[in-house]
Amino acid sequence: MPDPVELPADLAERIAAVADKSGFVPNIFRALAWRPAEWRAFFDYHDALMDKESPALSKADRELIVVVTSAANDCLYCVVAHGAIVRIRARDPHLADQVAVDWRKAALSAPQRVMLDVALMLAVDPASVGADDLERLDAAGFSQDDIWDIGSIAALFALSNRLAHWAAVPPNDEFYLLGRERRE
Amino acid sequence: MPDPVELPADLAERIAAVADKSGFVPNIFRALAWRPAEWRAFFDYHDALMDKESPALSKADRELIVVVTSAANDCLYCVVAHGAIVRIRARDPHLADQVAVDWRKAALSAPQRVMLDVALMLAVDPASVGADDLERLDAAGFSQDDIWDIGSIAALFALSNRLAHWAAVPPNDEFYLLGRERRE
Amino acid sequence: MPDPVELPADLAERIAAVADKSGFVPNIFRALAWRPAEWRAFFDYHDALMDKESPALSKADRELIVVVTSAANDCLYCVVAHGAIVRIRARDPHLADQVAVDWRKAALSAPQRVMLDVALMLAVDPASVGADDLERLDAAGFSQDDIWDIGSIAALFALSNRLAHWAAVPPNDEFYLLGRERRE
Amino acid sequence: MPDPVELPADLAERIAAVADKSGFVPNIFRALAWRPAEWRAFFDYHDALMDKESPALSKADRELIVVVTSAANDCLYCVVAHGAIVRIRARDPHLADQVAVDWRKAALSAPQRVMLDVALMLAVDPASVGADDLERLDAAGFSQDDIWDIGSIAALFALSNRLAHWAAVPPNDEFYLLGRERRE
Amino acid sequence: MPDPVELPADLAERIAAVADKSGFVPNIFRALAWRPAEWRAFFDYHDALMDKESPALSKADRELIVVVTSAANDCLYCVVAHGAIVRIRARDPHLADQVAVDWRKAALSAPQRVMLDVALMLAVDPASVGADDLERLDAAGFSQDDIWDIGSIAALFALSNRLAHWAAVPPNDEFYLLGRERRE
Amino acid sequence: MPDPVELPADLAERIAAVADKSGFVPNIFRALAWRPAEWRAFFDYHDALMDKESPALSKADRELIVVVTSAANDCLYCVVAHGAIVRIRARDPHLADQVAVDWRKAALSAPQRVMLDVALMLAVDPASVGADDLERLDAAGFSQDDIWDIGSIAALFALSNRLAHWAAVPPNDEFYLLGRERRE
Repeated sequence: MPDPVELPADLAERIAAVADKSGFVPNIFRALAWRPAEWRAFFDYHDALMDKESPALSKADRELIVVVTSAANDCLYCVVAHGAIVRIRARDPHLADQVAVDWRKAALSAPQRVMLDVALMLAVDPASVGADDLERLDAAGFSQDDIWDIGSIAALFALSNRLAHWAAVPPNDEFYLLGRERRE
Repeated sequence: MPDPVELPADLAERIAAVADKSGFVPNIFRALAWRPAEWRAFFDYHDALMDKESPALSKADRELIVVVTSAANDCLYCVVAHGAIVRIRARDPHLADQVAVDWRKAALSAPQRVMLDVALMLAVDPASVGADDLERLDAAGFSQDDIWDIGSIAALFALSNRLAHWAAVPPNDEFYLLGRERRE
Repeated sequence: MPDPVELPADLAERIAAVADKSGFVPNIFRALAWRPAEWRAFFDYHDALMDKESPALSKADRELIVVVTSAANDCLYCVVAHGAIVRIRARDPHLADQVAVDWRKAALSAPQRVMLDVALMLAVDPASVGADDLERLDAAGFSQDDIWDIGSIAALFALSNRLAHWAAVPPNDEFYLLGRERRE
Repeated sequence: MPDPVELPADLAERIAAVADKSGFVPNIFRALAWRPAEWRAFFDYHDALMDKESPALSKADRELIVVVTSAANDCLYCVVAHGAIVRIRARDPHLADQVAVDWRKAALSAPQRVMLDVALMLAVDPASVGADDLERLDAAGFSQDDIWDIGSIAALFALSNRLAHWAAVPPNDEFYLLGRERRE
Repeated sequence: MPDPVELPADLAERIAAVADKSGFVPNIFRALAWRPAEWRAFFDYHDALMDKESPALSKADRELIVVVTSAANDCLYCVVAHGAIVRIRARDPHLADQVAVDWRKAALSAPQRVMLDVALMLAVDPASVGADDLERLDAAGFSQDDIWDIGSIAALFALSNRLAHWAAVPPNDEFYLLGRERRE
Repeated sequence: MPDPVELPADLAERIAAVADKSGFVPNIFRALAWRPAEWRAFFDYHDALMDKESPALSKADRELIVVVTSAANDCLYCVVAHGAIVRIRARDPHLADQVAVDWRKAALSAPQRVMLDVALMLAVDPASVGADDLERLDAAGFSQDDIWDIGSIAALFALSNRLAHWAAVPPNDEFYLLGRERRE
């Protein structure tokens, strides 16, 4: 991988912004950087789906989809990195581990259960998803925009998990500990 | 979905270019267009991986990866649309159907077999891919760039297959018949 | 395999009749011919189930069962050869490919969906079929004769698919193109 | 099902011969009899494969293939009825139960292990069988005729198991006890 | 394994009691005896769950759970040994073979079906068991003690099946024939 | 569950000893306590296998087997509780999460890889374990005692995971954070 000083200016700038905010550069940003066109496409896609929220689909909910589908794909990077984000966004130090191992027994709302059930179907057996599943999401209170986002997040991390496996990207050490202390 | 006349100018231009070249607008271009940022990311990623070739990894080989992994995901749109492209690029009216149903018995070169075997592992059981699989690709004559592309194509269509299932995008009628006559 | 001139007279006669009607000899007729007793049993069984129709179970429906269960078994010969017959009998150039890849999203009638769902259960997980599944077929309007035929067709092609895999029987080139032009 | 007195003469004659030899009429003979053409095809196929033996493939070996593949399909009729035949033909009161539950730990010869391994691949994942598997059988001492028989027996019982599940044919009580006493 | 004369006194005494009652020493008692602490824990656990009965959960029912879950784990020792006990306790020479191969088509009561369905879920896919499954058991008439026992028996034989596979413990010859004659 | 003051004296004493050492009572001790005979058997079995070590099989190795097989069974209690013990015994704050999600890409020794590979086979597909797997463990340097322990630990936690699912035992909050700071 090229050193950050050699990165195209737009990548260097976006990576610096992440480092400023997080205090470190998540490894996935470096692992994809030797292919700038793919890097831009990946993070543009990511930001379009993850940096938003709606009344029924919070940022924490979006991260829960990532953790549960990534766990089904045995993707260490995504489970650990997005598990940290779940802990922070949901202000819950245990929820990420709970859904990563056994989401069905976790303390989730009824709409969250439908959301994760359908997202997981798309992640592991995509042909099994049918119109009735989209109707279940609609009945659970998700808007058409939310429904599109739920499927798209599961689909994007189907890509992301496979890239992380292919390139054997390890999580940064920082992610393991982030958000583990209960906050008042 | 918004009508094409309402599309952002850059999308309208790229779609017009495809229509000029193909004689019709593949349905996936319309199905994603109501989300322009995701549309751009998806097709930028696609073009970065598919519109290129190398001595060991032709454009037809790239399409074979798409057909085989999409068949494993039961994705009608991708099997039919990219099957048509395989027929044209490989100048073979039967190969696409053969690999879609049973690639192991198809007439493929030894490197193509390794390529499809590893791509399929990544598609259906991503944690099963290990360093030894990348070494098998290297030993089969693929460059480091080729190896990255093989995994990335399987990963991108893990996303694409799931979007097509989620939005129930049907293949255009044109794709079913393209390239089925043997060319002299 | 023995040359057709060496075939027992009854096989030669039946093969000639098929060639007259189809314009070519489907490869499966030659592949099994070196075992005349098994050949006779196989084609007698086939004809008893496939060369008939009832108000609820047309010849095209029977072929749909073949294509869907054969696709589940990754059997190229049966998917391509019986896909051609579906195109001709259903007068639809796209339906065979649609059901072979993802029958659940295909445009089928409600009885056809029950028929394919139960036939596929018998094909891939036979112990999962119970009395309630036969009742579902009855409720969908199939007669007791139809129900017997549905299960028997799935069972016969469980045999047929395995013979085709074992002997690596390729489809004739003719099958790939048959029925692909939409008929007025 | 029609009563035996109403059976076509050829079926009645063949069933009487079986009853003479076995002391009872195995239920499968009655369950299929209401469809005489299918009955004839089924038992002709069966007899062509099972009523023969070769130096490397005994009648007991053929029955072992039936028991192991039928167990994989959870088919009670075939496991119990052909288990009885294994006990008698192999003169071993325990072997049938052993291979039905866990053939891998049973006391079998090396060629029998290859035979069962490949037959089971064909039974449960037919596309996984390749030319190398046929070569393994060849290397284990099976003739080309034997190899054809091994695959055909697995294929025929793929059909038979499904018919027995579909019609819910129970084993005759007699089968459970046959051959269970060790013979001197 | 140490010879019985070398066994700790408590093991020797308990084994002698079993031999007195059964007429032979089941192989599992010897196979675990070189680890006396584990032996005691295993048989204490076993006796606490299996040597009891309640109005809704007889000793025969408990053995049915063992046979069905052990069959799912392909455990010859447990299927054969506990199949013998089912034959004796249920006074039925066929039921054990029936449930071992295909419990869904066996002649069982409605509560037995719920019992086996849930026990099997716990045996083969433990995370799939939820509060609704325990409610199904409650609705079928099982007490809270019974429900605990049902799950614990499935769990204990998850252990037992794996020990028998690991140590390749064969069933005693005696088990194969026990209880096979119908008793008046 | 009975309150600790009502517990049989031996259980109360052993639970008090654990509380003294750990600073809290792990929930599994309370969840099983209403069945004292089963409680004793379970913890006796546990201590016989886990409170020991050998040159090739450390206490941390034993806990790794627990975490990897419990993750395969989606058992939150065991993954979180024994993950904490791995962090402490291996003096590594990341290893438990790594092996729980994707042990194949974790930094493990060659013997540890064989140990986990075979233990996982026994956990998820017990019939697949054969004599060659025990030989692989032997060749990796494990003694006969170690090999017995490896299989027995996988078997015991097959039981333990199922009890925890059945009783829906949650991990204590303390486990989530234990051992997460890197120690000098």
